[in-house]
Amino acid sequence: MLTTRTSTPRRAPHVVVIGGGFGGLAAARALRHAPVTVTLVDRANHHLFRPLLYQVATAGLAPSDIAVPIRHVLRDQPNATVLLGDVRDVDVAGRRVLLAAPCEPATLSYDYLIVAAGSRHSYFGHDAWAADAPGLKTLADAVEIRRRLLDAFERAEVAPTPAAADAELTFVVVGGGPTGVELAGMIPELARGALRREFRRIDPRRARVLLVEAGPRLLPALPAPLGERARRDLAALGVDVRLGTRVDDVTPRAVRLRVDGVDERVSTSTVLWAAGNRASPLGISLARQAGVEPDRTGRVPVLADLSLAGHPELFVVGDLAVVAWPARGGTVPSVAPAAMQAGRRAGDNVARLVRSRATRPFAYVDKGELATIGKHRAVASLFGGRLRVAGWMAWWFWLALHIAYLIGFRNRLSVLLQWSYAYLFGDRGARLIIDDAPAQRPTPRPAAAA
Amino acid sequence: MLTTRTSTPRRAPHVVVIGGGFGGLAAARALRHAPVTVTLVDRANHHLFRPLLYQVATAGLAPSDIAVPIRHVLRDQPNATVLLGDVRDVDVAGRRVLLAAPCEPATLSYDYLIVAAGSRHSYFGHDAWAADAPGLKTLADAVEIRRRLLDAFERAEVAPTPAAADAELTFVVVGGGPTGVELAGMIPELARGALRREFRRIDPRRARVLLVEAGPRLLPALPAPLGERARRDLAALGVDVRLGTRVDDVTPRAVRLRVDGVDERVSTSTVLWAAGNRASPLGISLARQAGVEPDRTGRVPVLADLSLAGHPELFVVGDLAVVAWPARGGTVPSVAPAAMQAGRRAGDNVARLVRSRATRPFAYVDKGELATIGKHRAVASLFGGRLRVAGWMAWWFWLALHIAYLIGFRNRLSVLLQWSYAYLFGDRGARLIIDDAPAQRPTPRPAAAA
Repeated sequence: MLTTRTSTPRRAPHVVVIGGGFGGLAAARALRHAPVTVTLVDRANHHLFRPLLYQVATAGLAPSDIAVPIRHVLRDQPNATVLLGDVRDVDVAGRRVLLAAPCEPATLSYDYLIVAAGSRHSYFGHDAWAADAPGLKTLADAVEIRRRLLDAFERAEVAPTPAAADAELTFVVVGGGPTGVELAGMIPELARGALRREFRRIDPRRARVLLVEAGPRLLPALPAPLGERARRDLAALGVDVRLGTRVDDVTPRAVRLRVDGVDERVSTSTVLWAAGNRASPLGISLARQAGVEPDRTGRVPVLADLSLAGHPELFVVGDLAVVAWPARGGTVPSVAPAAMQAGRRAGDNVARLVRSRATRPFAYVDKGELATIGKHRAVASLFGGRLRVAGWMAWWFWLALHIAYLIGFRNRLSVLLQWSYAYLFGDRGARLIIDDAPAQRPTPRPAAAA
Repeated sequence: MLTTRTSTPRRAPHVVVIGGGFGGLAAARALRHAPVTVTLVDRANHHLFRPLLYQVATAGLAPSDIAVPIRHVLRDQPNATVLLGDVRDVDVAGRRVLLAAPCEPATLSYDYLIVAAGSRHSYFGHDAWAADAPGLKTLADAVEIRRRLLDAFERAEVAPTPAAADAELTFVVVGGGPTGVELAGMIPELARGALRREFRRIDPRRARVLLVEAGPRLLPALPAPLGERARRDLAALGVDVRLGTRVDDVTPRAVRLRVDGVDERVSTSTVLWAAGNRASPLGISLARQAGVEPDRTGRVPVLADLSLAGHPELFVVGDLAVVAWPARGGTVPSVAPAAMQAGRRAGDNVARLVRSRATRPFAYVDKGELATIGKHRAVASLFGGRLRVAGWMAWWFWLALHIAYLIGFRNRLSVLLQWSYAYLFGDRGARLIIDDAPAQRPTPRPAAAA
């Protein structure tokens, strides 16, 4: 095996990887023995274990429990360089990655490119809602949601009237996918567990959680009985699940819902957005340059080997790619295991091309899908839906799986301890409101003391 | 023992405590069995174990390791209410606490007041430096310093010239007290330990740390030989200690130092401010209303029982108070144990007044002073300076003491584990750059890749 470095007489091919998530990191790792130099670009310095992001948002885990510096993951891979920067666009014909404005010189030339730029949440054309209904994709998002959740209880404690306190204790989660279900399920746990005895004027257990889903069921990616089970489990936790309900408007003090043409106004200052994804803008740009049609969320269709049509040197993986799934007749789902597998395949295909071998098609191995509901319930669909598990058994399975996945991250022990503690004592340790700009925070309205 | 609640026929006296730091929290706790109602007001939702804040700033500990919600600490004290809010001023004659603008109704009437509002860092009239030389008092400060330290290495990695990289790898710490010594000592550890193998274009070990102190020695609160020992230990870590050196100017890309009338310009984008404190503005207001003279940092002189002259119902404790220390002929130092002891005394004195007993004078018990230098050295002055310890023994003592102090916080086990891990493997787990507004962050300047 030959490991070529930039300093060798014949320049090693340069592979640029955009994105340090599951897909990009797997791609970079797959190239560790290849005779190439790898540059991984990400706008964050950390790789994020996103399936547990909702735990940070609900104060169960600290940000550092689920994130690890990308440099740290790749420190022992001498052919890989990590660059903290923002990608503006890709010049497919010129084989260049264009970096965002303040970075100069602003281009990275490549021989091979693997794009794993992921997605953000989508407001379906209502981007103005972003300020009042934050989504959950990054650590900063999670810290912001945590701040809003905790601030809501603080504001309720000092609200001038019972009606105002009720509004502050009303939480609306929009979107019935796994993120929405997990967020909605943890808020009652937070209110009834950790916060229970800490307030004097309000009873945090009065917190009311609405989970709003436009479609007819929860967890559309899982078999229908599991969606129904999740709905029942959430209802048992006191969550008001509204199916077939659209969000019509979001303002700082309320949301307007629409069911069967009838409007309902819900007073709340805390709306969390977990409805729908929009692919990174790179998707549309790549599709345009390759002459293919992006899907309606901006994802790029790719060939069976994950390369872009007409561009064997350019691969797209993860949430940004539309990948056919012949075995199931649809497309590969946008989940972490799929991104990891695709990243590995793309990295491996680059390594094959460098050695003048033919690429291999991507074959997705379905590991199943999971969602937790509150503190000790979950639903899981395994082996392509042939095994369905729900309740506490699924939760323990979920826990074991996530701790196993976290192996390789140095934080697994810390996570295990935090969870054991939270499980045993009902406490949530990371309940911090960290504020860079206290003046911008909605300030509580304290009542005059007696 | 009679525990009176607000609902009893005869209204219980209302005690307002301003500040949830060591002093305020100790005061509130000391009133737990008193027949009063207590309202503790703080602008942060958490109590902070500030002696370890430099560990968060240097990515060794996570914010949640050293902070705990104030509500959580007081959850089992039924006579205490916690209010998240900003105190604008105190109306001493009217016995009212005025809350900052957005809070309405904006006053808290009190029968007794304990002010423990602490201090911020002071730029000695150069407040414009704050943007380029952040100080370290709050969790947000620590997260910001961590971001700047880590960003500096990122910028160095993509710097266009070796000189630019050198400037990015130059760190200037201003102030030779414990915070400055501890920050300066941890930067080489961070650079040589955790970051060592993670960069490709720079060698993080080239990081240069300047510790600038205007006075003739480090750690002025400790005996002189320990200051000299700290200087030697820092020099052994490669820190360039500049005594008798003033900071003349701070700009985004440099600091100007002045030694014996000669100017020196140091190129750096990372200046950390650990020089000097300024008491909360409440100090000057209280002093004016009581007709006493604040000291030059804005602290209020108090009587032997910690009350304000002419106002037996108002006590001032912690960094905000100037308290005579007859045993030593000076004033009580601004350290955490002194604030805790004074808080307890003030709370106890209020309890005595409520029961129509005479207050007692504050008698400070000196537990000694400590500062760590890097990863396994410290200096300690114990039993009023009669016992001086330096080197690894002092470090182990420091560690044991801080872990013992953290008992009562739920995070001690996590802290112990993180430190054991960091000590054994040289890793620092909390190396996260969390960014709410990525556009405002100085963006790295990537070089065009080969």
